Amino acid sequence: MTQPLFDRVTLIGIGLIGSSIARVMRRDGLAGSIVACARSDATLNAVQRLNLADKVTKDAAEAARDADLVMICTPVSTYGVIAETIAHALKPGAIVTDVGSVKESAVAAVMPHLPDGVHFVPGHPIAGTENSGPEAGFDTLFEDRWFLITPPPGTDQAAIDKVSELWSRAGSQIDYLEPAHHDQVLAITSHLPHLIAYTIVGTATDLEDHIKSEVIKYSASGFRDFTRIAASDPVMWRDIFIENRDAVLEMLGRLSEDLAGLQRAIRVGDGNTLEELFRRTREIRRGVVEAGQHIPPAPEED
Amino acid sequence: MTQPLFDRVTLIGIGLIGSSIARVMRRDGLAGSIVACARSDATLNAVQRLNLADKVTKDAAEAARDADLVMICTPVSTYGVIAETIAHALKPGAIVTDVGSVKESAVAAVMPHLPDGVHFVPGHPIAGTENSGPEAGFDTLFEDRWFLITPPPGTDQAAIDKVSELWSRAGSQIDYLEPAHHDQVLAITSHLPHLIAYTIVGTATDLEDHIKSEVIKYSASGFRDFTRIAASDPVMWRDIFIENRDAVLEMLGRLSEDLAGLQRAIRVGDGNTLEELFRRTREIRRGVVEAGQHIPPAPEED
Repeated sequence: MTQPLFDRVTLIGIGLIGSSIARVMRRDGLAGSIVACARSDATLNAVQRLNLADKVTKDAAEAARDADLVMICTPVSTYGVIAETIAHALKPGAIVTDVGSVKESAVAAVMPHLPDGVHFVPGHPIAGTENSGPEAGFDTLFEDRWFLITPPPGTDQAAIDKVSELWSRAGSQIDYLEPAHHDQVLAITSHLPHLIAYTIVGTATDLEDHIKSEVIKYSASGFRDFTRIAASDPVMWRDIFIENRDAVLEMLGRLSEDLAGLQRAIRVGDGNTLEELFRRTREIRRGVVEAGQHIPPAPEED
Repeated sequence: MTQPLFDRVTLIGIGLIGSSIARVMRRDGLAGSIVACARSDATLNAVQRLNLADKVTKDAAEAARDADLVMICTPVSTYGVIAETIAHALKPGAIVTDVGSVKESAVAAVMPHLPDGVHFVPGHPIAGTENSGPEAGFDTLFEDRWFLITPPPGTDQAAIDKVSELWSRAGSQIDYLEPAHHDQVLAITSHLPHLIAYTIVGTATDLEDHIKSEVIKYSASGFRDFTRIAASDPVMWRDIFIENRDAVLEMLGRLSEDLAGLQRAIRVGDGNTLEELFRRTREIRRGVVEAGQHIPPAPEED
């Protein structure tokens, strides 16, 4: 049996991401024991049924006591209260990490509450599906994906290395970014695509009845892919847009300008402008395929 | 051996859609012989190598001569010239059909050129992938998808039934719509999603270099799905936006209004408005899954 990376790991929130990394730790013996904390009985019951943790509780402070690693896997708006709640229970040398999609506000929400000698290593796995909850997780979710670590200046290197090691074992490649830079990049690669998908699916649902009934029926013509993205967790995404407001609004402004240009090209029948753009975007897809990021993740079949 | 549905079928243009229906006709013996017409040697060579046609030619009139069914599978802007070119070669009773994504302008471009006694049955398979060309086709592309027939008033019922029968054999369900109504529905389910995907991928490629390099690297966070859609055939899509201008601009106007509302909600930190929309869009996804339209098509593995 491998020596565990951590004697005791606490997951605060255990949905798609938390349950997937729990499955990895179970599979490879990376945690001596796992404690899961969630607010609902349904989630905790599922965790026990799936044997994803040795102990479950609704009390975050109790969950964090004696933990070597505390991983926050809840929507970003909850970070401040969670950090405040667990602070007094954390043991010296404990590492706190997270998996949220916005890093500047994560650092701002968590750091002020942590006692000296406790290390915060903010992290973000670039992996996911549109499904939520502990049943939705699977242990190959992070394979061949990026795990981004965004340590504030002065973060303990040994703590960074231990978090890095955990995600390497899950199959991810590790990269390091400044929190603010991370938030800018994710605004365009993730937050804006989700916002647009939510919007367009919403626009479709507001159509007159005689069109609306056909939108779902004929969704295989492109709309389908947007409904998949727009099925992602509502609370998590609400928080992402609010917490990464400045970068999202900046990117949305650029998109709106570009969209206005295309709108004009369509109105005046300027096919060249359209075709030139469409050829350029096709090249980007080649880059994504070459980078090996084009295959959506899925649980392996039994 | 089954009796063929048509003695002689001519495909004008043989890319993803044309080559897929050719594969179906080959597999099931639905055509006595197949003639393929394309502009490039590369396409015609591929058609011969793949044995998708009995005869290939660059001459549309020659291709259409003696055909019982002529299927136009080219970008919509070419329809008028093609119809004019083949008109004199069509035999009495011949059926002309197409597979384009815009139907009002297809009818307007083709009908005036056809001689009396030749039937035009406009059609549109709601199926596709982001790949183009005869190599990209596969014979299961149309299974469990819709084929929409949009006959102008007075279209010969026997001609409609024969086209319908062909696509039923390919595994599609048949539905009938008015051309203008079809174009409105497709504007929101297909044309607008493609326009947005093209725009957002274009916006990302215009970013400052220090962000751009990371956009592809971290594309698994949502951007990936947009690059797939935005890799679709540039000329085909240029034509769709130009030919379905009114409906696309109408839907784009609605989307822009909705997007402005979300932009404001993000700016003022109105999480309730965001969350309410995100819950609503999740329900739409359930509808798509229940309708069985959620699985993207793919060639079967060998």
